[in-house]
Amino acid sequence: MKWCRFSAGGETSFGLIDGDTVRKATGAPWGPHDLTAQTFALRDVKLEIPVVPSTFFCVGVNYKDHVERMAARRNTKPSYPPRPDIGYRANNALIAHGENIVKPRDASDQFQYEGELVAVFGKRCRNVSPAQALDCVFGWTIGNDVSERTWQANDRTLWRAKNCDTFKPMGPWIVTGADIDAMVTTIRLNGRVTETFRTNNMIFDAPTYISEVSKYCTIEPGDVMWMGTDGIPENMTPGDVCEIEISGIGVLRNPVVME
Amino acid sequence: MKWCRFSAGGETSFGLIDGDTVRKATGAPWGPHDLTAQTFALRDVKLEIPVVPSTFFCVGVNYKDHVERMAARRNTKPSYPPRPDIGYRANNALIAHGENIVKPRDASDQFQYEGELVAVFGKRCRNVSPAQALDCVFGWTIGNDVSERTWQANDRTLWRAKNCDTFKPMGPWIVTGADIDAMVTTIRLNGRVTETFRTNNMIFDAPTYISEVSKYCTIEPGDVMWMGTDGIPENMTPGDVCEIEISGIGVLRNPVVME
Repeated sequence: MKWCRFSAGGETSFGLIDGDTVRKATGAPWGPHDLTAQTFALRDVKLEIPVVPSTFFCVGVNYKDHVERMAARRNTKPSYPPRPDIGYRANNALIAHGENIVKPRDASDQFQYEGELVAVFGKRCRNVSPAQALDCVFGWTIGNDVSERTWQANDRTLWRAKNCDTFKPMGPWIVTGADIDAMVTTIRLNGRVTETFRTNNMIFDAPTYISEVSKYCTIEPGDVMWMGTDGIPENMTPGDVCEIEISGIGVLRNPVVME
Repeated sequence: MKWCRFSAGGETSFGLIDGDTVRKATGAPWGPHDLTAQTFALRDVKLEIPVVPSTFFCVGVNYKDHVERMAARRNTKPSYPPRPDIGYRANNALIAHGENIVKPRDASDQFQYEGELVAVFGKRCRNVSPAQALDCVFGWTIGNDVSERTWQANDRTLWRAKNCDTFKPMGPWIVTGADIDAMVTTIRLNGRVTETFRTNNMIFDAPTYISEVSKYCTIEPGDVMWMGTDGIPENMTPGDVCEIEISGIGVLRNPVVME
């Protein structure tokens, strides 16, 4: 099933997508809800971020090839994460499919996308085993972990490198029952493919991360976990359109504009 | 004025505290709300965390004395933050005044409090000057930035060092119109004062931090910014009671228990 969060007629709701139609629901799909009789043409609604998380988890480094190629570019030795240490992003940075990624006036040219698989949780989750972990995931969406690399290298934290307003496109919708092993991530800049990788070719996969985090932290329904990116991102410049496609989910498309 | 968030009769609401009485409000005090005729004895209600933030900002290092004494303890040179780089904490870790701080089974003895002033925002805030910044702050509360130092030193991120469930006591309430220059923070472990410092003796004060963050990030009503701690924390062990008092606000008291 394909669930979105959308605005129409001044109201924001969750909705079940069937072909070109959205059927309005009365609550979050992972909680108590009913499907209403109200339907809209998908093209007529404004897609919103599919969820506003209470805690916004994000994996920093999670693909071997990304570690090795980034290290080669920086002329340093590759440093693999020894264990699944989760990080965080900030809700102020979230924008929906179609909305503008705004490049800050003082950002450098090193302004880059990162295409990521996103787990959306549907159940409260604490102390789950890797085997149980995916039972807590309601479905999957796509994230673009936009990053300013000079700030990332020089600030003490990732705050503005990763969390400026508009730096976290997420969407376009949530797909349930998807087979993450079959997924391929394809990143396009202005229609040109810049990277393609097997989505689940991770150093620590989603069940491992979820299980490890849940040993210490309660994951709530509606929380999200972004799973990291592979490859070497290119710079984005205002005027560009960045697309993250994950087969089995869809395409997250966002234009880049200047502040 | 003193505002709390409380539960009584199975409902959670904001409330205005007057002496020993809480008057229930219909919404958040920084948004549209009415005061109802319903009052409760303060001792009969369960105090909740005073707000659930959308983005949970937290200053990492913000007191000169803390930098110098922590460096001396680690036998390293003091390293002062060159600019106000904000960090983040996670909502799963928040607990209210009176609730238990749970020490994880595998935490080391280096399990410590950090008493912090917390700004609670009442207005949306983007690109504000330091002179305008405090206009966005609705009021002030108290935070205990509980930290496990071996994880803090060895993990790639602060996730479990700072964000395990129960590691972020916040409360007991929000005080408006407080004079932060007059505040003194006093930390007590089992009634014994372990640290006392001028609350506003910061490297970068709240107006500076708020202004800087707002250049890149929109701060929303209900967001919080924890302002860092001074001094050298002591270890907490199960059975201890930790109190953070900030004059003009109140006392945040939490027992420590074993997982």
